[in-house]
Amino acid sequence: MQPVKIGLLGLGTVGSGTVNVLNRNGREISRRAGREIVIAKAFTRSPEKPRLCPTDNIDLVGDPFQLVEDPQIDIVVELIGGDSPAKELVLRAIELGKHVVTANKALIALHGNEIFAKASEKGVMVNFEAAVAGGIPIIKVLREGLAGNRIEWIAGIINGTGNFILTEMRDKGRDFADVLKEAQALGYAEADPTFDIEGIDAAHKLTILAAIAFGIPLQFDKVYTEGISQVTGEDVRYAEELGYRIKHLGIARRSGDGVELRVHPSLIPERRLLANVDGVMNAVVVKGDAVGPTLYYGPGAGAEPTASAVVADLVDVVRVMTADPEHRVPHLAFQADALSDMAVLPMAEIETAYYLRLSVADRPGVLADIARFLADQGISIEAVIQKEPQPGQAEVPLIFLTHKVKEKSLDAAAAQIESHPAVKAPMYRIRLETLD
Amino acid sequence: MQPVKIGLLGLGTVGSGTVNVLNRNGREISRRAGREIVIAKAFTRSPEKPRLCPTDNIDLVGDPFQLVEDPQIDIVVELIGGDSPAKELVLRAIELGKHVVTANKALIALHGNEIFAKASEKGVMVNFEAAVAGGIPIIKVLREGLAGNRIEWIAGIINGTGNFILTEMRDKGRDFADVLKEAQALGYAEADPTFDIEGIDAAHKLTILAAIAFGIPLQFDKVYTEGISQVTGEDVRYAEELGYRIKHLGIARRSGDGVELRVHPSLIPERRLLANVDGVMNAVVVKGDAVGPTLYYGPGAGAEPTASAVVADLVDVVRVMTADPEHRVPHLAFQADALSDMAVLPMAEIETAYYLRLSVADRPGVLADIARFLADQGISIEAVIQKEPQPGQAEVPLIFLTHKVKEKSLDAAAAQIESHPAVKAPMYRIRLETLD
Repeated sequence: MQPVKIGLLGLGTVGSGTVNVLNRNGREISRRAGREIVIAKAFTRSPEKPRLCPTDNIDLVGDPFQLVEDPQIDIVVELIGGDSPAKELVLRAIELGKHVVTANKALIALHGNEIFAKASEKGVMVNFEAAVAGGIPIIKVLREGLAGNRIEWIAGIINGTGNFILTEMRDKGRDFADVLKEAQALGYAEADPTFDIEGIDAAHKLTILAAIAFGIPLQFDKVYTEGISQVTGEDVRYAEELGYRIKHLGIARRSGDGVELRVHPSLIPERRLLANVDGVMNAVVVKGDAVGPTLYYGPGAGAEPTASAVVADLVDVVRVMTADPEHRVPHLAFQADALSDMAVLPMAEIETAYYLRLSVADRPGVLADIARFLADQGISIEAVIQKEPQPGQAEVPLIFLTHKVKEKSLDAAAAQIESHPAVKAPMYRIRLETLD
Repeated sequence: MQPVKIGLLGLGTVGSGTVNVLNRNGREISRRAGREIVIAKAFTRSPEKPRLCPTDNIDLVGDPFQLVEDPQIDIVVELIGGDSPAKELVLRAIELGKHVVTANKALIALHGNEIFAKASEKGVMVNFEAAVAGGIPIIKVLREGLAGNRIEWIAGIINGTGNFILTEMRDKGRDFADVLKEAQALGYAEADPTFDIEGIDAAHKLTILAAIAFGIPLQFDKVYTEGISQVTGEDVRYAEELGYRIKHLGIARRSGDGVELRVHPSLIPERRLLANVDGVMNAVVVKGDAVGPTLYYGPGAGAEPTASAVVADLVDVVRVMTADPEHRVPHLAFQADALSDMAVLPMAEIETAYYLRLSVADRPGVLADIARFLADQGISIEAVIQKEPQPGQAEVPLIFLTHKVKEKSLDAAAAQIESHPAVKAPMYRIRLETLD
């Protein structure tokens, strides 16, 4: 089958990320989509500029309309952002019967109603997973994964810059203006940070989430929007004293016959998972009447997280473009004839750190012996806990935390340890995962 | 258009939950699916038993094969669980060209390869979102939402009973056997808890997640499986002392040319979100090469959370059954002609609790006056912080935490407070969300 040909509008951070992800994971992606996806053409204003991705096999053009109108292009990916000419380009692509994938939250929040009406008329798809919360597939979750629910409310940390600033204010006791400067230096905040810190970016995203959750039109102009520039270091500390954290939330909630749409700083109880979402990460809590509360967490911005969402949208379009049963979503995600025979490793070959619990006779030299058995197998110790024996008890618990080692080395050490006369019971191990 | 007719195999907890969700949210669900979904027939072994759902409009039958073979049934929903006759029923439905939705993790983990091969041959869908992590749409996320990624690893708390036991052991300092008894009394654990506490249930789910993440066949027999019955209260406390929590994890990880598949107790650093997933809740962390780490959290079991997943699968099938563009996933989740005109409420009508920050002159009676202004508007105070003035400062910060109140009442109180001669600057408010 012919590869699907993509036209990419924009070769900046996210555009380059998309090229890189499609290059690196191309084989795996076609095993899922059932067809190869190829970036045939890309629009850039400055074709000579050094790129963050290879462009050897891509036809670079300086006129975005020429790309959109090229009959060989099946899907247009819009990554230039902003209002114009993004809107005209997307409408033109739809007019020509092409499917569209976009990461442009302002475009969807402000012009989505018009764009979707046109797309429905022309029978094409317009996907926009990357417009909200970067790599978190929150649009798909709300639109499909929770389709059985009456959504009651959504509350999300949907601007990474704002969350970075509030996190730094709390962790380091610094003030707003000071942290903002650092965020700008690190590239987390734009030179003009208004969109992020005054909540406009979050309001765009909330507009989109609310429409999908409640089945209402996009209505950005009705979102109450308040930024974080008035939050002081003192506020952060007082909130903490009272058991709360301050987060910049986008909230959409059913309320009687209406719906609340609001973006503002919020106190939330410190034990909630959402209160513990730190730095540039995003997270959205969705409360459905059947499912209850669910939370979705991940990177809300960046080249490859955003590209992850763009490519998922492309795979969705490709699966639907060919509507025969073989191109539905495969049962096990990959096409049935493209499963891999990767081996499942035996536990002996697996490497983790360990928590080890021993019960040993309380006499001199035992700790030294056991430490030696571990060292003989190249197992280094991160921590030891040994407590005084309880009155009347001849044995004491001995706890080790090890660094990472293959399970077969630990098995060998365990055999030696358990044969030591002072060791009274088998050694119990719990594996330690750092999740990084 | 004709309603889609469902045959329900099983009217227990999840079956009744599915009927209730479809009844309650039927209108909203057809606004998403584009067609009405009706439960026409249900199989139950004991038609006289009192039900957790109304059955007036459902044809109850005592022979499950009669239901599967009924030509009016478009989709068979299998909720009887176990191996046989579930497997024969599902294969028979597929043979007859019917789509299938199932919540049966053992069936998919053990017989999925055979079932999916048959389904591909017959061109029907077999959806199983409810088989893993209850209401969390983790199958959809892995299969579609992260389709651009090479998945590096997955680590999940995918058995609620085990997580409840470990949480209680930590929170209350209790021992395993003791908490297990309570879990049985609460209905969280079965009379024979082996499947849950020895990790077999989690291994079924991990088998499914790994197949979808890596594009490998289902291979339950290769999962290393270790339960939590040997974890002691001491282990939990020592882990805590060292900065860790003990969780029962299912882990699937690429490693060189192979893949690790393992279920066992694990120490994880206490600052990780996953370490803070407590009680019967489930959560899965997915690390993709493009997106980075993402986390999905929600209820892993229960009538309506599981029904939420079953109904989402039904909506997916219905959308695909009619392959014309109008029945694709709608842009804004709901069919374009089914959007609602729900009003967006003005902020004045919104009710939240508040954090209030004032700067006041340090003299007697000010606190009493302000508290009076708040009380006049029916605003009750949950906490107050007033600090000693710093040397040389004439003003002190005054912080209030209020109970919930409409924003218009707070506006009225603010107007009075700000006109008080001791109040030197506008009152700053941060709304407080409890997220429940």
